[in-house]
Amino acid sequence: MQNFVFHNPTEIVFGKGTIAGLASRVPQDVPILLVYGRGSIQSNGVYDQVRRALGKRARVDFGGIEPNPRYETAMRAVERVREHKIGFLLSVGGGSVLDACKFIAAAARFEGQDPWDILSRHAPVHAALPIGAVLTLPATGSESNGNAVISRDSTQEKLAFSSRAVYPVFSILDPETTFSLPPKQVRNGIVDAMVHVFEQYATYPAAAPLHDRLAEGILTTLVEVGPKTLAAPQDYDARAAFMWCATLALNGLVGCGVPNDWATHEIGHDLTALYGIDHAESLAVVLPGVWKLCADQKRDKLAQYAERVFGASGVEGAIEATEQFFLSLGMPVRLADHGIDAQEAAAKITERFRARRARLGEHRRIDADAVGEILRMRA
Amino acid sequence: MQNFVFHNPTEIVFGKGTIAGLASRVPQDVPILLVYGRGSIQSNGVYDQVRRALGKRARVDFGGIEPNPRYETAMRAVERVREHKIGFLLSVGGGSVLDACKFIAAAARFEGQDPWDILSRHAPVHAALPIGAVLTLPATGSESNGNAVISRDSTQEKLAFSSRAVYPVFSILDPETTFSLPPKQVRNGIVDAMVHVFEQYATYPAAAPLHDRLAEGILTTLVEVGPKTLAAPQDYDARAAFMWCATLALNGLVGCGVPNDWATHEIGHDLTALYGIDHAESLAVVLPGVWKLCADQKRDKLAQYAERVFGASGVEGAIEATEQFFLSLGMPVRLADHGIDAQEAAAKITERFRARRARLGEHRRIDADAVGEILRMRA
Repeated sequence: MQNFVFHNPTEIVFGKGTIAGLASRVPQDVPILLVYGRGSIQSNGVYDQVRRALGKRARVDFGGIEPNPRYETAMRAVERVREHKIGFLLSVGGGSVLDACKFIAAAARFEGQDPWDILSRHAPVHAALPIGAVLTLPATGSESNGNAVISRDSTQEKLAFSSRAVYPVFSILDPETTFSLPPKQVRNGIVDAMVHVFEQYATYPAAAPLHDRLAEGILTTLVEVGPKTLAAPQDYDARAAFMWCATLALNGLVGCGVPNDWATHEIGHDLTALYGIDHAESLAVVLPGVWKLCADQKRDKLAQYAERVFGASGVEGAIEATEQFFLSLGMPVRLADHGIDAQEAAAKITERFRARRARLGEHRRIDADAVGEILRMRA
Repeated sequence: MQNFVFHNPTEIVFGKGTIAGLASRVPQDVPILLVYGRGSIQSNGVYDQVRRALGKRARVDFGGIEPNPRYETAMRAVERVREHKIGFLLSVGGGSVLDACKFIAAAARFEGQDPWDILSRHAPVHAALPIGAVLTLPATGSESNGNAVISRDSTQEKLAFSSRAVYPVFSILDPETTFSLPPKQVRNGIVDAMVHVFEQYATYPAAAPLHDRLAEGILTTLVEVGPKTLAAPQDYDARAAFMWCATLALNGLVGCGVPNDWATHEIGHDLTALYGIDHAESLAVVLPGVWKLCADQKRDKLAQYAERVFGASGVEGAIEATEQFFLSLGMPVRLADHGIDAQEAAAKITERFRARRARLGEHRRIDADAVGEILRMRA
């Protein structure tokens, strides 16, 4: 097992009716910025629940965060923070709203010249406004980690940052708030959570048997409850299990003691930035290509996964079972399904990785040319 | 799934050579009390590593904490805290030293009349001195929770308390510090960790499939690495897996969303208090009795456990496989093996539970008479 540090201070408040718990958790003595997306929280009643729980606290609303949250929008929120002397950010929505809040929280306290440096130059984030969350979309795990991904329109870039300072103080997860999600977002969330686990699992054996069992436990549960929760959105227990899986898939626990990959995410981010496909859609397309290209290095773990989760065998079995499972959720696994020309995408994205001199994967062996190869395989 | 709150702020620092990490984690500006047990940390080199990492910090040593830490000893440490204006407690040892530290930390800041009330009357603990830990014995999970168990000689009582205020700020877990443990303590640790999982798992189905997989993952790993780490104490990976299992068995995660039992612990505490057998020894004796008495209520979960962990079947299969596994570790499962007369123990302990008007188990159906029945079954 590799050495590790695990430290996750976020308080998770889980279950029906828990939004009322905001009353005792959001500070009373500072103005808060209530950040949300494009209005679904108004139509599904969550906004009203939140408003009621907050009572008479001084509050400014900031809506309109996009599915891939934009730098430009977040910077407008930073202006509001300064204008109203905001002391607490409350994120109400999915991972995108929360990621935007993390960037807003960091940018508002950033002491460098240009907050864009947090994303483009990994400028360290030592301080941030405190954040609380009401999560309405299980997927990204952002409710219990210090990561955020932000896109910039002007440069068609999608970049990540990570800081201890932006872990939410608390996250409230009420599965009932997700009953009204469109099936496409539920499908995306299941795939996103699974790929988070894969990035921390499908590498090489690291003599970490408990890690393996935890990762396989999340995957097995998602394979079991994923189709159920798509078919019956109001089945509380299936939705709750899916929601808890998505949190534990990326709260740091599953990455403890083992090598991490993340190549699928890094390549997928460029597909989303260039072609606008959903984050999870990009992952479902790229993942099997990474596994195929790195079959030799990943052989042992993929075979173990195939056997323990699907009763299948070998790398081929792992790829086949995973693609079939994604397809069964209605998730396409090929670039052509999104109308993307693989040759063109490979050429463009290879150029980007060449410019970044990036080397991806747990062995840092995937260079720009290999990225092109992966994408051409996914035509 | 039941509603839950999960909030575990302890930083876990895991792996070889991590004791050096004390240097950046223990405050420089307050005197610290270094609390330890009966000298094993001096013979295995841990004390020297700790001393080196602490450098020139103002420090008072307090050794001699017992395996079942005594109230009387802890209160002597509280006097030292006051005398030297201690601002930080550093626990170096196993769960007993850490439990003592938690009580010392709470008692030193207790505003009521008598700190014994924390244990005997559940007087609330709102504040405590900060605690850090270097763990040298995987077993209790105390390194990552807010629980402690303290014994009082004068009344032959063993009582628990729990408070958010006594979670360690950090816990350093270096598996190499455990290489020199006597086999008996390793065996005890494996059984203790398993029973912690059982108390949060072997109840009734609560439609919490991820919880089940996590619990089964810890149990399966302990069944796999337990015998290995007993046979080869210096096999780093097996020892590391065992150590990480013991932490996750009682850091709160496995209890999320499901009913909890804890009858085995409550009955076991009295066996230890009256007859002096080790905590884990008491659990191994009591557990099969609780399962047998409550077979009807526990049938579904025990059958699932038997099948998923041992490939066995039914309640009988669960009890049989578990007893055999304990015996294979060299752990006795009967009162007679400890020279304890079951009739006498049943009579005495029934009286104690009757006086406490206790009702145990996930259904609160185990009354004093049932406790007696359980103990008589374990002759």
